Amino acid sequence: MTTTLITGIGELTTNVASPDDRFGTLHDAAVMIDGGRIAWIGSTADAPAADDVVDAGGRAVLPGFVDSHTHLVFGGDRADEFEARMTGVPYAAGGIRRTVTATRAATDDELRARLAGFVDELHAQGTTTFEIKTGYDLTVEGEARLARLASEVTPEVTYLGAHVVPAEYADDREAYVDLVCGEMLDAVAPHAKWFDVFCEKGAFTPDETRRILLAGVGADLLPRLHGNQLAYGEGVQIAVEFGAWSVDHCTYLSDEDVAALAASDTVATLLPGVEFSTRQPYPDARRLIDAGVIVAIASDCNPGSSFTSSMPLMIALAVREMGMTPAEAVWAATAGGARALHRDDVGSIAPGMRADLVLLDAPTRVHLAYRAGVPIIDTVWKDGVAL
Amino acid sequence: MTTTLITGIGELTTNVASPDDRFGTLHDAAVMIDGGRIAWIGSTADAPAADDVVDAGGRAVLPGFVDSHTHLVFGGDRADEFEARMTGVPYAAGGIRRTVTATRAATDDELRARLAGFVDELHAQGTTTFEIKTGYDLTVEGEARLARLASEVTPEVTYLGAHVVPAEYADDREAYVDLVCGEMLDAVAPHAKWFDVFCEKGAFTPDETRRILLAGVGADLLPRLHGNQLAYGEGVQIAVEFGAWSVDHCTYLSDEDVAALAASDTVATLLPGVEFSTRQPYPDARRLIDAGVIVAIASDCNPGSSFTSSMPLMIALAVREMGMTPAEAVWAATAGGARALHRDDVGSIAPGMRADLVLLDAPTRVHLAYRAGVPIIDTVWKDGVAL
Repeated sequence: MTTTLITGIGELTTNVASPDDRFGTLHDAAVMIDGGRIAWIGSTADAPAADDVVDAGGRAVLPGFVDSHTHLVFGGDRADEFEARMTGVPYAAGGIRRTVTATRAATDDELRARLAGFVDELHAQGTTTFEIKTGYDLTVEGEARLARLASEVTPEVTYLGAHVVPAEYADDREAYVDLVCGEMLDAVAPHAKWFDVFCEKGAFTPDETRRILLAGVGADLLPRLHGNQLAYGEGVQIAVEFGAWSVDHCTYLSDEDVAALAASDTVATLLPGVEFSTRQPYPDARRLIDAGVIVAIASDCNPGSSFTSSMPLMIALAVREMGMTPAEAVWAATAGGARALHRDDVGSIAPGMRADLVLLDAPTRVHLAYRAGVPIIDTVWKDGVAL
Repeated sequence: MTTTLITGIGELTTNVASPDDRFGTLHDAAVMIDGGRIAWIGSTADAPAADDVVDAGGRAVLPGFVDSHTHLVFGGDRADEFEARMTGVPYAAGGIRRTVTATRAATDDELRARLAGFVDELHAQGTTTFEIKTGYDLTVEGEARLARLASEVTPEVTYLGAHVVPAEYADDREAYVDLVCGEMLDAVAPHAKWFDVFCEKGAFTPDETRRILLAGVGADLLPRLHGNQLAYGEGVQIAVEFGAWSVDHCTYLSDEDVAALAASDTVATLLPGVEFSTRQPYPDARRLIDAGVIVAIASDCNPGSSFTSSMPLMIALAVREMGMTPAEAVWAATAGGARALHRDDVGSIAPGMRADLVLLDAPTRVHLAYRAGVPIIDTVWKDGVAL
């Protein structure tokens, strides 16, 4: 097995907390990779010999980004809807149905080609772990197909039959919820680790959400939730009640919602690409962090409300718009995402963890926000292999 | 001379206005490049033979970006100041003096290496023409050195001795203005095309600005101005009065300022990277465009107030934050920048223009905002050569 040593790291963000530094920052550091895992961390001066040596030249290294919320299996795009929205048309969840039509019309190979392009795009931007949701077919066979295709590129597949009620069930919501909880769940579950419900006005009601969550838990899938995106509502409380690993969006939160999150292990996953692309108000990350809530950030990459896959931009937006420090935003995009995906092998840099690393063409992690929009991802390692 | 034909362009933005379309948009188009210039434009079906053929595969082509406002010759960075600002410390022009100290300490070769890195970064992001200002040395020999180094990478060099009064003249502003108008101007002029004054509280007063502009015009340099960035003031009116090619920032404008711009040929150059990075309010591009003002957007890339060089991000911010349509933002980043730099050979795609082109990995220019942060620049040609 070949070993690789990265030396001369000016700033290494390990996310292994010490009493002085929650982010586990080291300087003039080195990292040894062996067999796809981190084998050793220390100072450059103490580094052992290795087969290959990469000199970081004083630049920054951090864990690969963990994007815990994407919708990357779909056909078509909605650039026209984005353009109209930017001139004043408000965002509405109903636009999802347009993507459903395009996705149903796409062949497996068309969706695979699209997915392969997105995977390249994610890797180029430093994302080494990512989740993908179904939810753009909304038929039994179609949702199973999307989950199967997603599972070809990631283990983090989420069943989101409860994305929106499809047009053909507009007059019989209950029949669609029955399908989501029954036959569709059975068909998708073998390909999925997670299940999710879009609990929001225009999507699924609190009662429907609870019913679907009970069914998903019964099928041994792990729960996560879309909630509190467009208005105050019960999403966060339901997520905590069901022990969801994450509740995503969290823009409109009451004090009770924040307190419930703080008292739970449920991660609040914030998706600033959505607010950027829909011109909605940004969630208040500062309020959540100060209350003790575990915060992740993710891209929500999808053709309707956030067609960006850029975790560096999410970090810049979290700093500019949501009150996070650069270090907090990087933590949320790495360790936070790992928490939201119930993963203990990614999101930090420590012996035994997967060797998923990003070398920036910059001396510190602050530059991810300071140099917003500039592609400063120099090298990305996934499982120890430079991509 | 080798000819290159780009065929199968799904959307070609020429910026050659027609009665129906100010942006000169063509579909299923082809462009012929010959000798570094555009030789022919038409439909793919009518395209002549060429030595090399590039199939755009239905994707979008537009003019290379023209970044008419940067400060790329400097030493050091101010990441710490950015980080502090993001936690509430307001932006102040005085921080410029820190970069002056670092720039004076840098050798020619250090600055050249830095510049070469920035030029690569600009090209990778689709920028094919860019301006660079002096202003980070503020001594006679030092400003001449910065102009000379900048002139090695671009013809668009701006003398900005009037960036801020350096610390050593803090008690004798008038002596510094004398220097800027006299010995320093004589030393820098041979290397520069433009001159500029930072007319703002904390930098130069309206009276000082007028005096410096008179001197610059006397030395046959072309005028441009920083104005109305942090507060209402006389900058815009002075720019129009002196026939400046551009007045840059334009955040705080009275109705009289807007009317003066609309009645002039002076371009209003908006710099949304600054508002992003300083958390100041964005300028209102919609108001300017609706009044008939010529609007450009540029990066203002500099280590203090906007350390981004990303014209795609500037377009996304112009759409999200400043009320521009995607097409208007692309026009402002190409033809608008060319107007601001008094260039008639770049910024549009027409026979005889320089073959500076960008192929997007996307079907339309809307994707530059729709896919914010994602590196969708596929291929960049400068003077007909793929970079």
